[in-house]
Amino acid sequence: MEHRISRQMTDATDAYGRRLGAYLEQSSYSRLRGGPGVIDLAFGDPHEFPAPALVEVLQRHLSPQHTDWFAYTRDHPPAQESVAATLSRELALPFTADDVALTNGAFAGLTICLRSVCDPGDEVVYLDPAWFYYEPIIASVGAVPRPVALTPGSWRLDAELVAAAITPRTSAVIVNSPNNPTGAVYTDEEYAALAEVLREASARNGRPVYLLSDEAYRRIVFDGRSCPSPATHYPFTFLVHTYTKTLLLPGERVGYVAIPPTMPDPAVLRRALTVARLTTGWAFPNNSLLFALPELEQHALQVKPIEQRRDLLVDALREAGYEVQPSEGTFYLLARVPDADDWAHAAVLEERGLLVLPASVMGAPGYLRLSLTVTDDMLEETIGRLRSARPSTREHASVQR
Amino acid sequence: MEHRISRQMTDATDAYGRRLGAYLEQSSYSRLRGGPGVIDLAFGDPHEFPAPALVEVLQRHLSPQHTDWFAYTRDHPPAQESVAATLSRELALPFTADDVALTNGAFAGLTICLRSVCDPGDEVVYLDPAWFYYEPIIASVGAVPRPVALTPGSWRLDAELVAAAITPRTSAVIVNSPNNPTGAVYTDEEYAALAEVLREASARNGRPVYLLSDEAYRRIVFDGRSCPSPATHYPFTFLVHTYTKTLLLPGERVGYVAIPPTMPDPAVLRRALTVARLTTGWAFPNNSLLFALPELEQHALQVKPIEQRRDLLVDALREAGYEVQPSEGTFYLLARVPDADDWAHAAVLEERGLLVLPASVMGAPGYLRLSLTVTDDMLEETIGRLRSARPSTREHASVQR
Repeated sequence: MEHRISRQMTDATDAYGRRLGAYLEQSSYSRLRGGPGVIDLAFGDPHEFPAPALVEVLQRHLSPQHTDWFAYTRDHPPAQESVAATLSRELALPFTADDVALTNGAFAGLTICLRSVCDPGDEVVYLDPAWFYYEPIIASVGAVPRPVALTPGSWRLDAELVAAAITPRTSAVIVNSPNNPTGAVYTDEEYAALAEVLREASARNGRPVYLLSDEAYRRIVFDGRSCPSPATHYPFTFLVHTYTKTLLLPGERVGYVAIPPTMPDPAVLRRALTVARLTTGWAFPNNSLLFALPELEQHALQVKPIEQRRDLLVDALREAGYEVQPSEGTFYLLARVPDADDWAHAAVLEERGLLVLPASVMGAPGYLRLSLTVTDDMLEETIGRLRSARPSTREHASVQR
Repeated sequence: MEHRISRQMTDATDAYGRRLGAYLEQSSYSRLRGGPGVIDLAFGDPHEFPAPALVEVLQRHLSPQHTDWFAYTRDHPPAQESVAATLSRELALPFTADDVALTNGAFAGLTICLRSVCDPGDEVVYLDPAWFYYEPIIASVGAVPRPVALTPGSWRLDAELVAAAITPRTSAVIVNSPNNPTGAVYTDEEYAALAEVLREASARNGRPVYLLSDEAYRRIVFDGRSCPSPATHYPFTFLVHTYTKTLLLPGERVGYVAIPPTMPDPAVLRRALTVARLTTGWAFPNNSLLFALPELEQHALQVKPIEQRRDLLVDALREAGYEVQPSEGTFYLLARVPDADDWAHAAVLEERGLLVLPASVMGAPGYLRLSLTVTDDMLEETIGRLRSARPSTREHASVQR
């Protein structure tokens, strides 16, 4: 008897296969990763040991300080208060602890928001290029992904393009700034225009078009920038954050969804987000991370070294014949290949032991994504190999699809 | 503008409110818990410090042993192999690492299975009394919960009752043994009869009726029992386990879904369970727990002290006028009140500082659930207070609904 996988998980599996799955299964990444001399610039993973002080914080909060230490714990007021204090300071809005729903990372944050506001058949708009998991997560809740193609190269948030993509079935729009993979940090002006579009669409549709603001990288901004949030412009916003980027610890998951104090009738949403966490695999952080959170708020990656690596890599990529704009934030650079075939160029670099992501799998065909989380030594080696692998060498590549 | 919460999360919220939410919000539990002299027998939470050796295992696996330690990690072959070895030994079936999908606990295990095989409008059968989260989780995937009322007092798995509840829309049946709250451990004979029913129903429906076997308590069995699994009787079984009970660490979440080696075409399910974990809030365990798992497999609660507490509490409850059968496993005892009003009796005990769960919220009206995870001192005090709070005192209670 044949299996009967649900429509939603079938669609999510197809969406996954079209984007990230295509790379992991059709490239040599999984085979080459970790091999001798291979430098992995494909993903934003850590390549150095975390700061000992950070490990100490994590370990200390695994030492039980009372007998309830490992009991079921949902929210934890000191953790929520520390988040509310940070957001209040950064966004000049009076967030309270109740506005903060703690999660085990941004996967969970995005999923509980979509499960809370999307009915099957609803549409969710997001901007392409995009994180490769938006489409599978949207499909998994039975909603229809509606990607909006941004103008290549500038990648600015274009509210008019969003407006054109909204229909009466649109229940949510996802934006992501600092943006993975483009590196763009959206401005208050861009958010103000978007808010106007969403207000009009909500009024027209007779239901709120919710805004999911994926701010996973909100503390990874360069050149002295701050990171605006649409939460200061549009009340129906879910601000989704995770510490896994800020601390470069994707394997230990803690984050939150915050709703702005301007949100009407917040109790309805708070209850939905609680039940959504209960029914999305207990999407609360593990206790040790929950208890550590006020201290984790004080830790953060040093951004300056990432910025310096960005500058070195931008120069090297340009010298090697790629078009590239310096990122304004995130762990990534997006480099345009001369002839639009990102898979072929990724294969050329792969032959030189450089693993980079063909950004086709993020909706940016013709671009490569490179991660700045490599070490300085790995970067120096990368730059040397880029010099010996100018784009013109691609005719020698054995391209794998 | 009013919020528009999805139908599925609205239904899940209602289901939650009817069961656990009703207790947490309408009883004095949340106010009294942790107060001086208050003994919490309502939930299976730890009340003693965990073994130092267990804490040491957890902390040691937070010490990075290589620079990839905190990188994104999905499955981890040594962890999967240790699970497969245990299950192969216990169930005499040749499980392999690929049969094991690691999760951050049983909430996640159940949720990824249901999201993988249930379409909106499908029906999911489960046996009442039941864990209070089945109904919200089922509702959250858009399926219709179909509780089957077991015969009170015996609470045996009755395959004929399951057969009568299955319709052409049934995509899954959930069973739970050792059973929370009844304490029943189902036998191989009961599972063989159930398997026959499910095989016939699958053939009749032209699609598999999947069996979700919630075996969270499979290592908490008393009187020298073993714990059979339906995975040895029915190929279309998901065996869901979590270490949070075995280690009494609900706050640090790690578990798995295993499919039996008899499962036809397992690749289809493995892929669905992977995408379901990605789209259910990254439902993989945190790295430190993933890496610790082979050692955690060697740790387990001592069952004998729980069994001894069971015996003492059974005697005390009987002496106090309750009908109670000794549990065969789990952390719980189910005690029948003389006049069917479990809320009133819970309120009487609450006045004496004993927090117990009115089992109405688990589909067992007229029963109280008491947890055996209290300390020996707490148990002694509980027994003393039970003696002074015979059921006949209930007319003095101020009952809160």
